[in-house]
Amino acid sequence: MADTTSATPKYWNSSISEVEPEHVYVRGYDLEDLIGLPFSVNTFLVIKGRMPTPQEAAVVDALLSGVVDYALQKSGTVAARAVVSCNPSMTAGIATAILGAGEYSLSPESAAKFISESYRAFVESGLSETEFAQNLVADASARRFRIPGFGHPVFRGVDPRSEKLKSIAVEAGLWGPEAQLYEGIHAEFTKNPKVAHFPINDVGMLAAIATAMGFTPAEATALVVIGTLPGVAAHISEELRSGVMIRQIQPELVNYDVPRRDFAADRRSAGWD
Amino acid sequence: MADTTSATPKYWNSSISEVEPEHVYVRGYDLEDLIGLPFSVNTFLVIKGRMPTPQEAAVVDALLSGVVDYALQKSGTVAARAVVSCNPSMTAGIATAILGAGEYSLSPESAAKFISESYRAFVESGLSETEFAQNLVADASARRFRIPGFGHPVFRGVDPRSEKLKSIAVEAGLWGPEAQLYEGIHAEFTKNPKVAHFPINDVGMLAAIATAMGFTPAEATALVVIGTLPGVAAHISEELRSGVMIRQIQPELVNYDVPRRDFAADRRSAGWD
Amino acid sequence: MADTTSATPKYWNSSISEVEPEHVYVRGYDLEDLIGLPFSVNTFLVIKGRMPTPQEAAVVDALLSGVVDYALQKSGTVAARAVVSCNPSMTAGIATAILGAGEYSLSPESAAKFISESYRAFVESGLSETEFAQNLVADASARRFRIPGFGHPVFRGVDPRSEKLKSIAVEAGLWGPEAQLYEGIHAEFTKNPKVAHFPINDVGMLAAIATAMGFTPAEATALVVIGTLPGVAAHISEELRSGVMIRQIQPELVNYDVPRRDFAADRRSAGWD
Amino acid sequence: MADTTSATPKYWNSSISEVEPEHVYVRGYDLEDLIGLPFSVNTFLVIKGRMPTPQEAAVVDALLSGVVDYALQKSGTVAARAVVSCNPSMTAGIATAILGAGEYSLSPESAAKFISESYRAFVESGLSETEFAQNLVADASARRFRIPGFGHPVFRGVDPRSEKLKSIAVEAGLWGPEAQLYEGIHAEFTKNPKVAHFPINDVGMLAAIATAMGFTPAEATALVVIGTLPGVAAHISEELRSGVMIRQIQPELVNYDVPRRDFAADRRSAGWD
Repeated sequence: MADTTSATPKYWNSSISEVEPEHVYVRGYDLEDLIGLPFSVNTFLVIKGRMPTPQEAAVVDALLSGVVDYALQKSGTVAARAVVSCNPSMTAGIATAILGAGEYSLSPESAAKFISESYRAFVESGLSETEFAQNLVADASARRFRIPGFGHPVFRGVDPRSEKLKSIAVEAGLWGPEAQLYEGIHAEFTKNPKVAHFPINDVGMLAAIATAMGFTPAEATALVVIGTLPGVAAHISEELRSGVMIRQIQPELVNYDVPRRDFAADRRSAGWD
Repeated sequence: MADTTSATPKYWNSSISEVEPEHVYVRGYDLEDLIGLPFSVNTFLVIKGRMPTPQEAAVVDALLSGVVDYALQKSGTVAARAVVSCNPSMTAGIATAILGAGEYSLSPESAAKFISESYRAFVESGLSETEFAQNLVADASARRFRIPGFGHPVFRGVDPRSEKLKSIAVEAGLWGPEAQLYEGIHAEFTKNPKVAHFPINDVGMLAAIATAMGFTPAEATALVVIGTLPGVAAHISEELRSGVMIRQIQPELVNYDVPRRDFAADRRSAGWD
Repeated sequence: MADTTSATPKYWNSSISEVEPEHVYVRGYDLEDLIGLPFSVNTFLVIKGRMPTPQEAAVVDALLSGVVDYALQKSGTVAARAVVSCNPSMTAGIATAILGAGEYSLSPESAAKFISESYRAFVESGLSETEFAQNLVADASARRFRIPGFGHPVFRGVDPRSEKLKSIAVEAGLWGPEAQLYEGIHAEFTKNPKVAHFPINDVGMLAAIATAMGFTPAEATALVVIGTLPGVAAHISEELRSGVMIRQIQPELVNYDVPRRDFAADRRSAGWD
Repeated sequence: MADTTSATPKYWNSSISEVEPEHVYVRGYDLEDLIGLPFSVNTFLVIKGRMPTPQEAAVVDALLSGVVDYALQKSGTVAARAVVSCNPSMTAGIATAILGAGEYSLSPESAAKFISESYRAFVESGLSETEFAQNLVADASARRFRIPGFGHPVFRGVDPRSEKLKSIAVEAGLWGPEAQLYEGIHAEFTKNPKVAHFPINDVGMLAAIATAMGFTPAEATALVVIGTLPGVAAHISEELRSGVMIRQIQPELVNYDVPRRDFAADRRSAGWD
């Protein structure tokens, strides 16, 4: 059993699971009971520490399916295929794709941080949602701060994937005040004609829903990124079967600017021998 | 639309998804239709290329939940927590945990390879399952080849997690001939009194079920490893909140054998100056 | 030759190297001429694009040797050993150690950014170095901004490794104005009695020297991190020979707080069946 | 001091370095003495545990410079640039490039294993080098075993980079019997007219020299891979400055074969609702 009365504190503390000789207890439940549960249920349980309701599990499935695949237009997928074309290892490929989620793509981390910090500030402000949103948007444009999660290269006005994600959260009764506030900020933001057509994009919406469910920005990132891995695994598997080795960028796609130089002369003039 | 009649072959080929300006088609379905589906359904669909039956989805959930978490006794989890204690990034931590799945832990790859190759050989052999198993076990012990997936440090005779996994596959009607053969080999293997108590362990059973469903060894590895990531995310989140930075092995746990030496003298005697 | 007159711009551009059927030209020199050169020379050449002077090569060696090894008190090394204890792969282990360099350890990136931005601001300010430093330190303490690279858990007043690094840069005539300014800021900073004993630590000094040599913060990070890899390789090699598999945190070092719960009851009360 | 007389064995053992409050001892030398040494000297020292001779350091520089860069025709470099185009992190990019070294490219591991195992077998065999090589080559062709390190897509007969590497090892007096034997095997191998033009390629030669110096296959891999990192860092730095985000494979380079399907119909026929 957990040594919770330990007088001397220990270097490590963990509340997630505990291993006994014949049983593993995950968040207090015997692993044997968790085998076969829907992935969304185990995901919520192990991260949040309690059994989800069916509604919460449904929204976790939404978070996990927001970005199922994006063909060879997702950099992490391209990187994973390049890696396994030399190092035919599924785990090396998946690790690579994970590293390709970041500030410019896939990761909801900055949007989730913005939403949770804005919500905290809103609660402390005592202002109405509209007043708060007006101040925030005015301040952001003054500071030239780009609010994360707004705008999309293709969709104007509405991003249908975001709409689908929102409808699932609303139907589950989990469209919380943080998501509400983010939408209010978006409404205020789009009053500016120059950006009136900016929708809340899929990553912004995933961040809003995850935050409203009480996931931290890091946990929101984990959920969105895990959701992309079946697609990554499919691409790695397709690459391993392709028979192509050592993927490269064909020279005709590259402008190489490497003027030839005189090694001996340059070495001398740099002061060697 | 896919340019499948292209006269000139192209450097890349992919059948997984295709991006159009306003739609992403994953295995032929509009991404919007896939948002909110259970993770197991999208996982099967994107990897196998067709809609799973409810039974197939249930078995994918079993494969994804076989190894939910293993506390701080899983090396990849320890590594991930160490990494984020210096580099507080969820993606760096998840990538690390993925790299910790390998030959000695978590990865069903070698077991899945053994099962699919054995099944192929069995079909070609024309032998009865019993004859084939007898030959294989005899040959393995002669070559001192360790059959992957047999034996467990704690469980003797039966591994209850394996039993649970098998019961799910059987109930779904997906306990295919590959799994059948692996069990037959195990039955033959355990006739040797010295190993009569070796069960099929959880990783061996996950490999057998994944192989029977038609997943390649690499795909089986992906499913099992993805299934551990919610636990990994929970540990990383716990570590990020712990306030501990720069995890290390406390010196009292290490036997350091580093005799002090004379730099100048050794440098000279090595032939420098 | 490089197609530099290409009318149509290409998706990729690169000035680092170019491959011809029988020759590879790196920064314009035939790879055959570079084989056998000191690592510090090739490192400077390939990153900066020109042959270094002997003095520049000497300072690169200093940057590469600032953090040779730190036993099992470096998180990335611990993580790498944990990973290879399950996945016996040198490349997986090195990749892991690299991911363990970050904001809280090893990475000079934030210090290098601070130094280069401060220097830019100083040049634009038209102020004397002392005036600029006074304003910066006052502003930092007002904003409670922690200046990166100052202070050490053990060394008070002086960090001997930093002194050694500086002496090498000074001797090479490469102690540039950026490093000068950083020292001036440190002098101003330590006028505050509460932090009078804070030295410029090794990572801060490495950042100052790299910045003074014209390396970007990302390039400075690369140099310092590459410098740790021989030690990482030695630890991975030692781990692979140790015969220990599946490194874990021994249970007696962990305070597990995982109260046992009733699965069926909790499932019901969460609204499932 | 190292507790080498410890009665109770400890979970960790290490002979690489030890940290004392004011000093770090690496292989017995104070870190302060190692700061500024050539990278090749510290690399040999920390991995092998003793000060190298100048000749040994020169050969380490050769091992580190065998594969300086290979433009955008190296998969790991392409992967690293793709990753940082979304996740602008030098460490994430370097880790990615490391994962791209493997069985099909860059890694000398399989060649080094072949050479050290062959040498062990040769010593035990009591045969002459020629007899041993004849038997080995005959056996390899009978088993259709591809000897690693022989052959090159461009170079026929001789690989000039390999010649340069060998000349450095010979000049240093470090062309040991393992390298000798590998050359003997190559001589025997090329008696077959079909492969008479196969040279020992650069990776094979790096493996032979590293093995002759007493590096393990894993250590040889580390040296060759570390040697590529300055080039990787240069490419990541170039990518970060390129201003291009989210690198992808342009659709015109891909043959997408994704027929459109009827979601509702397929879902029904799969047995859902």
